[in-house]
Amino acid sequence: MILRSDELPRSADVAKHGGVGEFGVETILTKEQMGKAGRLFVRGTLKPGHSVGMHRHEGDMEICYFLSGQGMVREEDGKTYTVYPGDVNVTPSGHAHEIVNTQSDANLVYLAVVLFNGDR
Amino acid sequence: MILRSDELPRSADVAKHGGVGEFGVETILTKEQMGKAGRLFVRGTLKPGHSVGMHRHEGDMEICYFLSGQGMVREEDGKTYTVYPGDVNVTPSGHAHEIVNTQSDANLVYLAVVLFNGDR
Repeated sequence: MILRSDELPRSADVAKHGGVGEFGVETILTKEQMGKAGRLFVRGTLKPGHSVGMHRHEGDMEICYFLSGQGMVREEDGKTYTVYPGDVNVTPSGHAHEIVNTQSDANLVYLAVVLFNGDR
Repeated sequence: MILRSDELPRSADVAKHGGVGEFGVETILTKEQMGKAGRLFVRGTLKPGHSVGMHRHEGDMEICYFLSGQGMVREEDGKTYTVYPGDVNVTPSGHAHEIVNTQSDANLVYLAVVLFNGDR
């Protein structure tokens, strides 16, 4: 099955974890398709200045693969990292992260995958 | 944890499923990190003319997100699709696919994720 980039189902943008603005979602796998493997496989978009607020993963892990734009990842120890296309933010269970589009002129686009990799 | 694009661990290129040439692997998650969620989360590279041969998924599903280059996906019914960056090839359990870099001047680069989404 081929999903075309410009035909991925878009859902209404929602603010996430107290972040600024909205998180645009294009679904690659539904929760049902993820089954026991996880609960999220999407392409997410943060507009300039928008963010996903600091949140902790418990019982799952998140992999964010940055596709375009430039942003900032903050981890729970307060350390911040500038991220570029091709970089990856891995947040294991028990850890927290925040993602911010720090640019004023470009969207920050990334694949977000949440996996159930432990015992459930 | 941040993994930088140019520092992803590269493993020796391997021929896959009788394809042409080699499949270059940059690891994003190890098999251990995938745990019960799956068995593969890599950025793969096919050089011009190289391919991953037709193979069937049984008990797992593969998601291929195309990052750069242009290629061809063939499914088990013989249908072929030209794929471009941002397109996705989803191969559920019980289905087969083949991936070919059809270009002569550019690598075909994609994220390959294999998930255990069913009962195991």
